[in-house]
Amino acid sequence: MNEALNETHDPLLRSWQASANDPEGDFPIQNLPFGVFRRKGSGEVFRGGVAIGDQVLDLAAAHAAGAFDGPAAKAATACCEPVLNGFMAMGAPAWSALRLSLSRALRAGNGLEPKLRACLVPQDQAEYAPPAAISDYTDFYASIHHATAVGALFRPDQPLLPNYKWLPIAYHGRSSSIGTTAQQFRRPRGQVKAPQAAAPTFAPSARLDYEFELGVFVGPGNAQGVPIDLAQAESHVFGLVLLNDWSARDIQAWEYQPLGPLLAKNFATTISP
Amino acid sequence: MNEALNETHDPLLRSWQASANDPEGDFPIQNLPFGVFRRKGSGEVFRGGVAIGDQVLDLAAAHAAGAFDGPAAKAATACCEPVLNGFMAMGAPAWSALRLSLSRALRAGNGLEPKLRACLVPQDQAEYAPPAAISDYTDFYASIHHATAVGALFRPDQPLLPNYKWLPIAYHGRSSSIGTTAQQFRRPRGQVKAPQAAAPTFAPSARLDYEFELGVFVGPGNAQGVPIDLAQAESHVFGLVLLNDWSARDIQAWEYQPLGPLLAKNFATTISP
Repeated sequence: MNEALNETHDPLLRSWQASANDPEGDFPIQNLPFGVFRRKGSGEVFRGGVAIGDQVLDLAAAHAAGAFDGPAAKAATACCEPVLNGFMAMGAPAWSALRLSLSRALRAGNGLEPKLRACLVPQDQAEYAPPAAISDYTDFYASIHHATAVGALFRPDQPLLPNYKWLPIAYHGRSSSIGTTAQQFRRPRGQVKAPQAAAPTFAPSARLDYEFELGVFVGPGNAQGVPIDLAQAESHVFGLVLLNDWSARDIQAWEYQPLGPLLAKNFATTISP
Repeated sequence: MNEALNETHDPLLRSWQASANDPEGDFPIQNLPFGVFRRKGSGEVFRGGVAIGDQVLDLAAAHAAGAFDGPAAKAATACCEPVLNGFMAMGAPAWSALRLSLSRALRAGNGLEPKLRACLVPQDQAEYAPPAAISDYTDFYASIHHATAVGALFRPDQPLLPNYKWLPIAYHGRSSSIGTTAQQFRRPRGQVKAPQAAAPTFAPSARLDYEFELGVFVGPGNAQGVPIDLAQAESHVFGLVLLNDWSARDIQAWEYQPLGPLLAKNFATTISP
């Protein structure tokens, strides 16, 4: 796998898709992030795609065009689904095989260029959905700077609690309100109470913000109660997304003790596709 | 629907399945709880079933035998799946139609008796799975007696916090560790710290218990951000299960502030089938 990584991340690689060679671009041939997409407003079924330059390569179309064989073809079959759970569960060897195959197929001079050009959809004509059906997600309080800053909002006298430096502080979030960046959502309403007020009132949140986080998609799971060795942890990570953890701070301040935030945090979580 | 409820809950109803008429039994014809099951050790696919006396009526087999028609048949089709999410999403009219049809078919003197006898599996030969693929679950801190008792374990000076009487205190739980009563699980290990200890240690939990709760399966959902009117709330409730909320109190005491319990509560949640 390290050999494949060395090959796909070689900074000298160039693609026949010219926009991928823009040094300012997010999606050079060395990146190739997976997601699910369809043509905007088409009502098509979502399917797997890979960003390359300013385009999305339709993996279902590329697979149908015979672009892959062997383990990469098997992995590509899983990418024809509307969510990538099956592909994510296949594990690092499958991910690596498909990425290597894609990297070679998209390189300048590769003979698949004519076939694959027909499988490209411009990113500005695509819309996206979360890449997996997410059944659980855990929100880690992972930055000491953030924990200190947020802690000061609620506990000016003790922003950082005694456990913080000893274990990962985290809580479960609501999976069903995770959407992509394009998601529209309503400003939440809830109970808020000023410190000196005798009783709370019910009102739209007046203190809405978001924490800017990194989302991690875990691929192969583990049997319940069986730990994953630290040395193996990275091989369970399928990929990363940017994540906005929307938070209604006025609702949170009143509701969060003793069991943590609920309605202040579960109305929307948005991720990059 | 009230008419159907009145008919199916009539205390005078009796079933041709004699064990259902035992006044000490959990599953008289007035109850008819839905679940998913298969023959123990058979490796069969799970499918919907209904408890009647000491038996489970196999809904897939009963449907195949032509026991249902109209809306009840449509509902029964959804019960042939390994999880009842589709049936739950159909809403109260579908639930009511199938229950009424089942109630009539199982009554003493009903002509379907010979067909349906072939669709019964003794409960002691059955095994069960959670009735739905659960994508989110919320644990409500709903009993003031419990909140006071648990609060006293962690905050002897202030067991009940000021928000408790104003709003439902709750947090998201881990869906992936929900199993049925038969589930075996490992005693969790985690960080624990005695109040006077200088540092935490990593150890198996020595203070394992469970909270005995009622689990509520919500059927039809609502669009994100659109409230359900209180008057409509009950029609969204598909059904109830008994629930054991397993808790590692020593791990919880150290980890739970400020974001609530995580590893102390997410290693297992068990429900009646």
